Amino acid sequence: MGKMGNIIIGQSGGPTAAINASIAGVYAKAKELGVEHVYGMVHGIEGFLEEKLCDMDSYFSDAINLELLKRTPSAFLGSCRYKMPKPQDNEEVYEKIFTLLDKYNIGCMFYAGGNDSMDTVKMLADYAAEHGKKQRFMGVPKTIDNDLPITDHCPGYGSVAKFIATSVKEVMRDNESFGAKKPIVCIVETMGRNAGWIAAAAALAKGEDCQGPDAIYLPEVDFEVDAFLAKVKELASKKSSVIIVVSEGAKLADGRYICELASDDAWVDAFGHKTTSGAAAYLCQLVGKETGLKTRCVEISVLQRAGSHMASLTDINEAFAAGSMAMQAAFDGHTGEMVIFTRDGENPYECGMQTYDIHEIANVEKKIPRDWITEDGLNVNEKFIQYARPLIMGELTPIYVDGLPRHIVMKELYES
Amino acid sequence: MGKMGNIIIGQSGGPTAAINASIAGVYAKAKELGVEHVYGMVHGIEGFLEEKLCDMDSYFSDAINLELLKRTPSAFLGSCRYKMPKPQDNEEVYEKIFTLLDKYNIGCMFYAGGNDSMDTVKMLADYAAEHGKKQRFMGVPKTIDNDLPITDHCPGYGSVAKFIATSVKEVMRDNESFGAKKPIVCIVETMGRNAGWIAAAAALAKGEDCQGPDAIYLPEVDFEVDAFLAKVKELASKKSSVIIVVSEGAKLADGRYICELASDDAWVDAFGHKTTSGAAAYLCQLVGKETGLKTRCVEISVLQRAGSHMASLTDINEAFAAGSMAMQAAFDGHTGEMVIFTRDGENPYECGMQTYDIHEIANVEKKIPRDWITEDGLNVNEKFIQYARPLIMGELTPIYVDGLPRHIVMKELYES
Repeated sequence: MGKMGNIIIGQSGGPTAAINASIAGVYAKAKELGVEHVYGMVHGIEGFLEEKLCDMDSYFSDAINLELLKRTPSAFLGSCRYKMPKPQDNEEVYEKIFTLLDKYNIGCMFYAGGNDSMDTVKMLADYAAEHGKKQRFMGVPKTIDNDLPITDHCPGYGSVAKFIATSVKEVMRDNESFGAKKPIVCIVETMGRNAGWIAAAAALAKGEDCQGPDAIYLPEVDFEVDAFLAKVKELASKKSSVIIVVSEGAKLADGRYICELASDDAWVDAFGHKTTSGAAAYLCQLVGKETGLKTRCVEISVLQRAGSHMASLTDINEAFAAGSMAMQAAFDGHTGEMVIFTRDGENPYECGMQTYDIHEIANVEKKIPRDWITEDGLNVNEKFIQYARPLIMGELTPIYVDGLPRHIVMKELYES
Repeated sequence: MGKMGNIIIGQSGGPTAAINASIAGVYAKAKELGVEHVYGMVHGIEGFLEEKLCDMDSYFSDAINLELLKRTPSAFLGSCRYKMPKPQDNEEVYEKIFTLLDKYNIGCMFYAGGNDSMDTVKMLADYAAEHGKKQRFMGVPKTIDNDLPITDHCPGYGSVAKFIATSVKEVMRDNESFGAKKPIVCIVETMGRNAGWIAAAAALAKGEDCQGPDAIYLPEVDFEVDAFLAKVKELASKKSSVIIVVSEGAKLADGRYICELASDDAWVDAFGHKTTSGAAAYLCQLVGKETGLKTRCVEISVLQRAGSHMASLTDINEAFAAGSMAMQAAFDGHTGEMVIFTRDGENPYECGMQTYDIHEIANVEKKIPRDWITEDGLNVNEKFIQYARPLIMGELTPIYVDGLPRHIVMKELYES
């Protein structure tokens, strides 16, 4: 493996429960293929630009630590939100990166992330091609949003879907226990900015022991305030426990997010920006004011993407496999590509993998197909369930120490 | 067991992850002791007054269903918030209850709940004694708030503590992954109205792999806005990830809850009542406005008490045992008592059980002792950890079906 030299791995964008499994996959395959040094970028490309590296071998020569890594949520290496400049705007950044890659004899960089991260991979691969650089750049998909194109689904999504479906089911149990006398309208807010994949996962709660949410408001369908209130009233006239799920990304026909309807005072941060969440809180206020019904607000917040104790085994295994495949492909000479999943079989579910030209992927968003959404726009149908159910199957039991899931942490993260 | 006749079980107050294990314990012991019919009150004493009963034997003659019951969050029988009137104010209620008890040949009523529920047990036991009624009344403690007196701890607390500590640890991982350039102040809100037991459980997150929260604001210590802001600024000047935990019950010296500081418009419900949560949201707003620091708000909401997928095995086993003991004690002739836990040993932890006069328990609240709180009032010390750690030990693995924890549900709850 002398030809390729060492490798480096970075993580970027919002953390998930599965992104660490992907870097575990890259690491394990790298060692199998004889890569000598595996470096990590501390806080992604932004940290790398300041030469913040960690020696992954010092952590993962012991196999138990790789198991812990698969069970540790968020980004072990630290994350960043860094927008790569175009070479013509700031070539210095590129020169710095390639100088550092040469300095550490790094032949391939792996970057795990979502849309923006794939853009970084694309720009670095293009620059390398244009300037005759030998380094390879591979993308490993990661996003709870599940909105990358081409790939059937994204590592991270299965785990957040399992967390959402479980949490909604548990919240429904709680809500049902009251309400004999007076209905309670519980509004649950999920993440998901432009695509409704996360909110839709709440539909998975439906089963023999659960009626599932009464309505799911998705970004894919225009939100109408009056229709929403009418729906709530109709539901509350029929049942004592009403459960509504709303994506933080649900918006009106004019493009405003629900949370933007709140009074300015309530939802503007220190810099005058509207916050990106608060849809459920606003709708609870509105329902209370307009109908007098008792409401409850549950904003699942970062718990949903950090909840690795509820990770889907399918998701973790696929995330690991995606990392391994990226490493193998780079070893075989690929660059400027991302690993994608293909759906090779249903019943039993079979997931295949390929690598794919990053240019087709970066900066494109995939939404829920309209024909996976019920006609009234207030739920997803069997097509979605068939798609999503296999992704939440199986559990990866945490390793418990002193009653809590044990994680592995990088000391450089605290020192940087 | 003909002497005692049939029994009835009810649940009341806020649901927990362990209250169903208690009724499972009553049920299992009742069958062992030869009780013929075990009835359940649908929606507690309030439903019983309308003769809403369920036949628990129809659900639990199959032992797998008792296992599911131990793993089902919230109140299987439905809950209520019903304040028993005094006999002199409304004797009709008492006559109705005893008429129904006679009608179904019920010799003992078991009521699982917190403070208000124990008050119900007390009033019924007193009425029975004064009027020469043969029925017995036993309390089974249940409250995530852990604020019942006399007992070392309450069933339900260990599970919420495990959920809080795990969630705070996971949120910290997420928060740490960013923040290399700019600190992020994450404020996590827990339940707990007058006692800080739930918020304090966040301190259990501290360990070899976790620094634990930077400060915990408890109801036991007066909250000062200026001191809070100064503390946040100090922390943010030293570290990039700041984690603050705040109990919804934390209040100022003048008695106002933190959420009451928010502008009226934001936190008043349809009936003009201030909502009981929103402390974290308010403090995030405040920190943003006063310091310009980036903030994140995590309100754990009902997820914390409904999260049976993260239940503590110790808690579930003890809740089951408490139910069994209540049944045994009633069988032995006790009435007007609640099961309490005693701490019989540390290292190894040993939990004993007794029954105790309900008059000493009802309407008394237990707070965290001041000497379990650090001198600056911003955390709990080793005494709390030693107390709480054993309560979160062990896990009760959910029974997964189609990728989600399976629950058991009572059909009468949907029909009532």
